[in-house]
Amino acid sequence: MSTESHDAVDVIRTKRDGGELSPGQIDWVIDAYTRGIVAEEQMSALAMAILINGMNRDEISRWTGAMIASGERMDFSSLARPTADKHSTGGVGDKITLPLAPLVAVFDVAVPQLSGRGLGHTGGTLDKLESIPGWRAALSNEEMLAQLDGVGAVICQAGSGLAPADRKLYALRDVTGTVEAIPLIASSIMSKKIAEGTEALVLDVKVGSGAFMKDLENARQLARTMVDLGTDAGVRTVALLTDMSTPLGLTAGNALEVRESVEVLAGGGPSDVVDLTVALAVEMLAGAGRPQSEDDVRAALADGRAMDAWKAMVRAQDGDPDAPLPVARHQDVVRADRDGVVSHLDAYGVGVAAWRLGAGRARREDPVQAGAGVELHAKPGDTVRAGDPLMTLHTDTPERFARAHESLAGAWGVGDGAPGRGPVVIDEVRSEG
Amino acid sequence: MSTESHDAVDVIRTKRDGGELSPGQIDWVIDAYTRGIVAEEQMSALAMAILINGMNRDEISRWTGAMIASGERMDFSSLARPTADKHSTGGVGDKITLPLAPLVAVFDVAVPQLSGRGLGHTGGTLDKLESIPGWRAALSNEEMLAQLDGVGAVICQAGSGLAPADRKLYALRDVTGTVEAIPLIASSIMSKKIAEGTEALVLDVKVGSGAFMKDLENARQLARTMVDLGTDAGVRTVALLTDMSTPLGLTAGNALEVRESVEVLAGGGPSDVVDLTVALAVEMLAGAGRPQSEDDVRAALADGRAMDAWKAMVRAQDGDPDAPLPVARHQDVVRADRDGVVSHLDAYGVGVAAWRLGAGRARREDPVQAGAGVELHAKPGDTVRAGDPLMTLHTDTPERFARAHESLAGAWGVGDGAPGRGPVVIDEVRSEG
Repeated sequence: MSTESHDAVDVIRTKRDGGELSPGQIDWVIDAYTRGIVAEEQMSALAMAILINGMNRDEISRWTGAMIASGERMDFSSLARPTADKHSTGGVGDKITLPLAPLVAVFDVAVPQLSGRGLGHTGGTLDKLESIPGWRAALSNEEMLAQLDGVGAVICQAGSGLAPADRKLYALRDVTGTVEAIPLIASSIMSKKIAEGTEALVLDVKVGSGAFMKDLENARQLARTMVDLGTDAGVRTVALLTDMSTPLGLTAGNALEVRESVEVLAGGGPSDVVDLTVALAVEMLAGAGRPQSEDDVRAALADGRAMDAWKAMVRAQDGDPDAPLPVARHQDVVRADRDGVVSHLDAYGVGVAAWRLGAGRARREDPVQAGAGVELHAKPGDTVRAGDPLMTLHTDTPERFARAHESLAGAWGVGDGAPGRGPVVIDEVRSEG
Repeated sequence: MSTESHDAVDVIRTKRDGGELSPGQIDWVIDAYTRGIVAEEQMSALAMAILINGMNRDEISRWTGAMIASGERMDFSSLARPTADKHSTGGVGDKITLPLAPLVAVFDVAVPQLSGRGLGHTGGTLDKLESIPGWRAALSNEEMLAQLDGVGAVICQAGSGLAPADRKLYALRDVTGTVEAIPLIASSIMSKKIAEGTEALVLDVKVGSGAFMKDLENARQLARTMVDLGTDAGVRTVALLTDMSTPLGLTAGNALEVRESVEVLAGGGPSDVVDLTVALAVEMLAGAGRPQSEDDVRAALADGRAMDAWKAMVRAQDGDPDAPLPVARHQDVVRADRDGVVSHLDAYGVGVAAWRLGAGRARREDPVQAGAGVELHAKPGDTVRAGDPLMTLHTDTPERFARAHESLAGAWGVGDGAPGRGPVVIDEVRSEG
């Protein structure tokens, strides 16, 4: 870290006028912002200039390094096993972390999965797991290491010590229209993952209506930026671009998604959830230096080894994997209005419906309903008859049904054609060396 | 003013993505910012987006109107005379307001000149006049109207009631690298001039090293933007683009500039100061509907009428126009290093030297020295001999000489050629409507 002093206005002007920030400017501005010397209104002007004028690979790499340097770094080198982690940019019905972490642990690779809670129309992994009776999200670093050593997989809350500059900057970007800057999104995600100390990282970059990135070009650019950042930091990193135009699997909501994840761990479950879980596991194992064929990975789902790892992981965090999951008190059904084939089912509309039913939160301090959400009975390409149930809406607070129905208006359709369902993995982005 | 409510992030996103702000968005964001509902960090992100992506004529006009609506408007319609005002974007040795206001008043046009203090390398009109013993800058609105009715000219401090949104926004822009946005510069200047209620306005847009605008294209764009704004608001507005590559006249410093202004009012003074004063007076009189020929205007300087108006104006504000002006306690001389012709004399270097000698202030609360500054003995094109004095530096605090000399290094030169001195008025920008 450079200790030279800079002037905030000079740094802002450099990027405003399309110039390249020097390593010293970047180190100084992140450190001074973290310590309150660079004011919020100065950082927001800089963030806007970065959003419009961009940053090159060297700048983004240095920016990410400065964010990491603002906090602590974790160290898993004492473990006997290699480590691999996964990060998803967030989507509707994205419960993949739940079956994936124990599945990878079966092959003697440690998975330290630091996760967050949901805000807005996409769910949060911790919210989902908290629907399991007794399960707790907060672990000390020592508990985390012990669980990785014993069970091999842990999904827990990220501590506040990793990249504190990112937490402060993210809150600022949220209120200043500067969230949608690819360099800042990439450095926000990667600073935490690199500080976490994983050896291999697989990124699931969602693209489509239910994702943060609506179009493939932006998703590809974000993936490329993150893979470069990971590679530059010595983390073996690969990204899969995956479809989020329609929800993943047949459920969106906390306990609903845990139930579906357990089906996958029992060797069943919707094919898109299974396919994506297996594809990500294969990449994580390869990145960790323990490559396995897709068939061998699928076998661990079929023969109960992944389920055993899941139960051990849940029990290690005081959860009861065999306890009944919460069920919402009220249900309402959306039915097909004609005979035909489901033509579309919009991930964003379903995500907003699940959120409005109580599965998500509008403000950070809101509680979530464990049982709330949307259960799908048909997906695009499925044949239905007029009156068949298409979705069941679940909530504890039935006054929420009306607004959930509003968000589903136009979000689905039944037509005459039979559109094919594409593969869940659209493309992949790897290190260019 | 629209009363509909908007979301700050939506307004920021509109401009960030290159869109046009709606009238309702502009009214809302300025009003909400003035009342503290839109936060400083949100306005700075918006200012940066405006700086990079610009605003069109409708947006700038509405933005300026919203700034005016944030405060009070003055009203000179009770006066028997038409009103005309002048605004300069600021330069080194720019004392033109001092002879200009009484000169225009000679022709039965009222000049309500609200002025400010200096910050940085350009001086402030109030600082200059305050070197006159007894003179006071702060007048009530009633005193101002009475003086316009009696003497016809007033130069006084702008009250805090005009465009308070501008004061808040300017302080923010100053620390966030968003000063250099032509739409924001133009609306800042014009909101105060339009709120002041003048019927005619002449803008002196400086261009060159000593000016805020260093190149002609930016100066022309600023002039065009301001002329359009004035025209749209019903103020007869014209802009002159004038040279600020070399200092105006032979003095830079408070009492030094008053002395030179009195020379002009006595029918003498440097030709560039006289030429610019006359050119601006001719435009102001035409704008106010009392057109005069250049010769008639010059006659009012030659025959003492302008001097009489000056003395009446100074006396009306408790100043003694016949009292000796303050003189600095210490002098130092810069001499020619060879025989030849003065090849260049940089306005910025001279301005910084005057500022460092004590004529200007580094922080808003600093005092200024009345006698400090730079007196020029030769200008570009003048023939000199080795050892001839080129400048005399004046200060009460001789420890300042060293840093003043530093800022003059390279700021002047004596060569063999004889470069012509160009006219002070480079171009003019008029209403296209």
